Amino acid sequence: MRIGFVGLGAMGVPMAVNLQRAGHDVCGYDIRPGAADALVAAGGRAAARAADAARDAELLWLMVVSGAQAEAVLFGSGDAGGAAAMLPPGAIVAAGCTQAPAQAAALAARLEAMGLHLLDAPVSGGIKGAQGGTLAIMAAGSEAALARARPALDVLGKHVFDCGREPGQGSTAKVINQLLCGVHIAAAAEAMHLAESAGVAKETMHRIISVSAGNSWMWGDRGPRMMQDDPPVTSAVDIFVKDLLLVADQARALKLALPVAAAALEMFTAASAQGHGKADDSQVIRAYRRLNGRDAA
Amino acid sequence: MRIGFVGLGAMGVPMAVNLQRAGHDVCGYDIRPGAADALVAAGGRAAARAADAARDAELLWLMVVSGAQAEAVLFGSGDAGGAAAMLPPGAIVAAGCTQAPAQAAALAARLEAMGLHLLDAPVSGGIKGAQGGTLAIMAAGSEAALARARPALDVLGKHVFDCGREPGQGSTAKVINQLLCGVHIAAAAEAMHLAESAGVAKETMHRIISVSAGNSWMWGDRGPRMMQDDPPVTSAVDIFVKDLLLVADQARALKLALPVAAAALEMFTAASAQGHGKADDSQVIRAYRRLNGRDAA
Repeated sequence: MRIGFVGLGAMGVPMAVNLQRAGHDVCGYDIRPGAADALVAAGGRAAARAADAARDAELLWLMVVSGAQAEAVLFGSGDAGGAAAMLPPGAIVAAGCTQAPAQAAALAARLEAMGLHLLDAPVSGGIKGAQGGTLAIMAAGSEAALARARPALDVLGKHVFDCGREPGQGSTAKVINQLLCGVHIAAAAEAMHLAESAGVAKETMHRIISVSAGNSWMWGDRGPRMMQDDPPVTSAVDIFVKDLLLVADQARALKLALPVAAAALEMFTAASAQGHGKADDSQVIRAYRRLNGRDAA
Repeated sequence: MRIGFVGLGAMGVPMAVNLQRAGHDVCGYDIRPGAADALVAAGGRAAARAADAARDAELLWLMVVSGAQAEAVLFGSGDAGGAAAMLPPGAIVAAGCTQAPAQAAALAARLEAMGLHLLDAPVSGGIKGAQGGTLAIMAAGSEAALARARPALDVLGKHVFDCGREPGQGSTAKVINQLLCGVHIAAAAEAMHLAESAGVAKETMHRIISVSAGNSWMWGDRGPRMMQDDPPVTSAVDIFVKDLLLVADQARALKLALPVAAAALEMFTAASAQGHGKADDSQVIRAYRRLNGRDAA
């Protein structure tokens, strides 16, 4: 299948490479020069403009950061935009980004007016899932769109969930996942901060929780980086400010009070306000230290 | 080993039975008549009074609900009390209950004054862990106490953690685990409530999260019961009111703000205030429905 792939970041590169290796013809674009090198090394092609990646593609996969970026790639101007106009009639646009359900629905309507179809297809599983082709994909769209994208979905994801016929339903599932992810990271930081304040060895605490009822996927993944002072950035604090704001937006739209997610959002917001927005999201623990007067500064 | 076992509830019974089956001589007591039947069927003995269970025991395991109950069993009057006075010199009291670290330390001091030794040994893993002998045990106490209790610990637990030489350090680890458990149950309810409010099928949502980064031990365990209107009670809402209050007490003692745990505590407190204190803790979701005007009432 001819696949355009826009957004060659930490997750996008291995996903595009996996599609190419599975026998698809992948043409990739990213605003950062050189981002497509690994794809080219795997036999794929690099496009100089987003529109070139989209030209003649049966499927255009968008692995950008937000719905606003997806809209800019499809309908914006400049090298990074204008992709929708270059897609052949009936092509599928798979939006793998995390965005508001309403935004996904709006994108779908705009594409339909051009004879194109949106597959709302956010993912979970991070870099590891992207590399291993073991992502969870929350797909929503017409049955035809789902069927046409299926060969790509099966390469990228170990678990492909059909969330419904309306674009936006996949994003709703993703927003709910992000609620849990954000709360679990904040809770892990809160627990680690209680441990360090009470004089419990954090390494022991990490081993205990890993086999106890308090365990979570995030505890296993972020916990080790939370014990480091300046860990490598796998996903930044500001990503969770954004994602928990998506949760808050959807809650507002539905008129729902979600107090635990709200408390977690405040801690990520504080971490960002304290200058840690680009740090690894495990470093939300720094906001706890400052909140409680336990920071060195 | 001669083992006294006080507190034959949902977890205590299988633990006492496992100790008996492993070749120890177990004498059990519970305030509820008949609670020791399964232990007797497994070859153990039933005591008419807590003091009788303790008589001549090298190890007295307390599997009661709280530190206050542990104190009453050891030092209180009546059939349910007076156990400490019957223990031979040098005996070990293992407190498997969830209690405040300061309470465990106080119990230890009182026992030491009688020539007895406390092993602060709270557990995690629930009924399944108790039945399978796969509990996580967070043990703190003298090396001698730990060594003498070791044969019992190895029967009851798959993971026995040495949390330190001071009774209270095991309870601190347990309090931290309970922080995570309470937050994760409330977050699961919040996520489920968002799903039901947004019109997402909860069963689909449960399958998605179970393979996504938002997963937690509690999501897997409590999630299915959260989707039922009146599930069997495995652990009650009021247990988490109690345990998150222990978290709050320790936070206060250390002068720590823990905003995510505080928000979770409010939801369990509300669920209890609404009359659901004896319901399964998954039913904290009812407090979300009422909070947001989505309850039928």
